[in-house]
Amino acid sequence: MMILVSYDVRTETPAGRRRLRRVAKVCLNYGQRVQKSVFECRVNQAQYEALERRLLEEIDLNEDNLRFYRLTEPLAQHVKEYGVFRAIDFENDSLVI
Amino acid sequence: MMILVSYDVRTETPAGRRRLRRVAKVCLNYGQRVQKSVFECRVNQAQYEALERRLLEEIDLNEDNLRFYRLTEPLAQHVKEYGVFRAIDFENDSLVI
Repeated sequence: MMILVSYDVRTETPAGRRRLRRVAKVCLNYGQRVQKSVFECRVNQAQYEALERRLLEEIDLNEDNLRFYRLTEPLAQHVKEYGVFRAIDFENDSLVI
Repeated sequence: MMILVSYDVRTETPAGRRRLRRVAKVCLNYGQRVQKSVFECRVNQAQYEALERRLLEEIDLNEDNLRFYRLTEPLAQHVKEYGVFRAIDFENDSLVI
């Protein structure tokens, strides 16, 4: 299945910025980054559960927001994309092309 | 249909911050904000096309990224949410509860 993972992590504190880095790192292991805090992941049920479990270990439920959406397939017919997305290492603000 | 709208707008410049405000304002007319730059919108085909057209008038295709996803329904069975989302006026950094 295709799922979309999106998150808001509060980054006012060093701890928040660390959470953001760790959340992104987990997501990078499971899918493709399509925006700064949005990932598309093709996973089976076991992988979905593992991803969810790993992310719940990282986020702060009192500070952050994490969402998983099941996407309608075939994805190509149900997604529209406009504009550019640059391969930036957002967590460290350096270009990783 | 339920669609998810997400965007990355480059906000390094005043023009970018203006685009961000305008993009958010358009989205607020069509759906519910669920994260800083993620909205869920229940629309018919005509509304979807209008929303898309309006957003394309606001974003800069050379700087920003805009995505529309068709969500699988019933939504309640295909979305998982964790953590908190505060009703912040992100564009103006003031609380709007």
